[in-house]
Amino acid sequence: MNERDVQIREVGLRDGLQMVRTILTSAQKLEWCARMVDAGVTDIEVTSFVPPKVVPQFADAVEVATGALAIDGLHAAALVPNLKGAQRAFDVGLNKVHYVLSASNEHNLKNVRRSTAESVEDFERIAAARDELNREVMLGAGVATAFGCTIAGKVDERTVLGLVETLIDAGAQEITIADTVGYANPAQVRALMRQVMALAGPVPIACHFHDTRGLGLANVMAALDAGVRAFDGSLGGLGGCPFAPNATGNINTEDTVFMLEAQGLRTGIDINRLLAIRETIAAWLPGEPLTGAIARAGLPATFVDREAVVA
Amino acid sequence: MNERDVQIREVGLRDGLQMVRTILTSAQKLEWCARMVDAGVTDIEVTSFVPPKVVPQFADAVEVATGALAIDGLHAAALVPNLKGAQRAFDVGLNKVHYVLSASNEHNLKNVRRSTAESVEDFERIAAARDELNREVMLGAGVATAFGCTIAGKVDERTVLGLVETLIDAGAQEITIADTVGYANPAQVRALMRQVMALAGPVPIACHFHDTRGLGLANVMAALDAGVRAFDGSLGGLGGCPFAPNATGNINTEDTVFMLEAQGLRTGIDINRLLAIRETIAAWLPGEPLTGAIARAGLPATFVDREAVVA
Repeated sequence: MNERDVQIREVGLRDGLQMVRTILTSAQKLEWCARMVDAGVTDIEVTSFVPPKVVPQFADAVEVATGALAIDGLHAAALVPNLKGAQRAFDVGLNKVHYVLSASNEHNLKNVRRSTAESVEDFERIAAARDELNREVMLGAGVATAFGCTIAGKVDERTVLGLVETLIDAGAQEITIADTVGYANPAQVRALMRQVMALAGPVPIACHFHDTRGLGLANVMAALDAGVRAFDGSLGGLGGCPFAPNATGNINTEDTVFMLEAQGLRTGIDINRLLAIRETIAAWLPGEPLTGAIARAGLPATFVDREAVVA
Repeated sequence: MNERDVQIREVGLRDGLQMVRTILTSAQKLEWCARMVDAGVTDIEVTSFVPPKVVPQFADAVEVATGALAIDGLHAAALVPNLKGAQRAFDVGLNKVHYVLSASNEHNLKNVRRSTAESVEDFERIAAARDELNREVMLGAGVATAFGCTIAGKVDERTVLGLVETLIDAGAQEITIADTVGYANPAQVRALMRQVMALAGPVPIACHFHDTRGLGLANVMAALDAGVRAFDGSLGGLGGCPFAPNATGNINTEDTVFMLEAQGLRTGIDINRLLAIRETIAAWLPGEPLTGAIARAGLPATFVDREAVVA
């Protein structure tokens, strides 16, 4: 693997699949993972340890996580909504676990039926459980609705910054700032992320954008300006937003990679391989609309695919 | 009209309509113009003075231009491909005429069957004819394929900068830099537009982006960073690209306005009125796919529509 300027993490298997009607088999999910690694995407959120009754798509979380651990070169992570989920993820042997809470208390209540303050306490218990393990497990924390909330409206920057500080103090080794509902704009992203970067010091920071209102890639550029170098994306923009019917989901992985590589920023990812995987996923998910300008229009003739040159 | 931070110019009636199969009536085109003015969009490229055989959509160029001149508050412009077209536009009484040539000689040959150098000479003749008029006519010049070309590939920055200088020397009172085929990326836009702005001095500069590869709005942000304060957009992203089947067209006017206003940049435009006009256009153009994240997902609850507050 070559050195990378920007890290792109695939969340389509988690944030994307939780929105679709078709339940993929564990084998399909693992094929998706393996082919992504082959395309250069080594950081993947492979599943979510939520109760299967809540999201049937993740009933096979243990099988997928176990299978993902066997894929060479893959840094598999899982989302956990609570201590119970975190313990399941630890038990499976995952080396990266990602917890999320919402900056908007109203959103947190709706999403996990407890207040943001209670979720912080839950995170502290997860961090304590992680510290008890006799192996290294990277514990990341995400701040959802960091740029606004469909229920509560405006979210104060100070709330987000306070949570970042609290989560780092509590043992988060990485922070993801998320525009869960697609409310962020570039000026807001630049302003908030500069403060987050200054506050976080050496703790790695990532951004998680949704393209709900078309500003996903412009927001990536604004976060890059603020110094952010890790972004979540979803292959084919799979997902959607539970609070906005017909709206698009996460920023599209292949378009994000295109935007970065076109500017000379190395992602280590081969776009043409991504496009081939996308076709497979599309066939597996009939009736699920995928987004993506590059899949539609093709790469520019002037585009230099350095990964393909290297490979 | 309030003071504006950024000028948004509608080109859907020209760049958009030249790509669609349905020919709108002159009355429909003029209704579109009048309602755009009512929404705060006062700069509109209302038609193109090309030979009707080439683009049947613009067979009514005289009627539309004449009608547009009667709309209060509208600064109507027309695209002209050559001296003959310019003379027709002058004769109708338009106060703004927009000429375009391509930085890519190959693209220029394909588009208007002459070299870029010949198009520069044509522009000089148009500027001379404009100087003969005993009224003020604003003559703008556009540099197409300024960020790359589907035929020639890479376009050298020096070619674009040389053309900007030549066109200003020849009498252009405004320059539009266009990413005709959707090849531009933000780093490239920022780098080129900074040089164009420095070179142009007091001459107003605008950008014309296509969203063919999903980077349209990120490119607007990059151009804003470089100091550009005028952008072309197309309502509903109408248009497409003749060189990329199924690809999206110009940047979407309403999404662009949303992005700017969300960041506190005044456009003087009421998005909700734009969305209402968009519905009318969609009904007039069955089977033409319109793009637009705001039309799909709605404005954020946190969005402050200052124009609506003022109105």
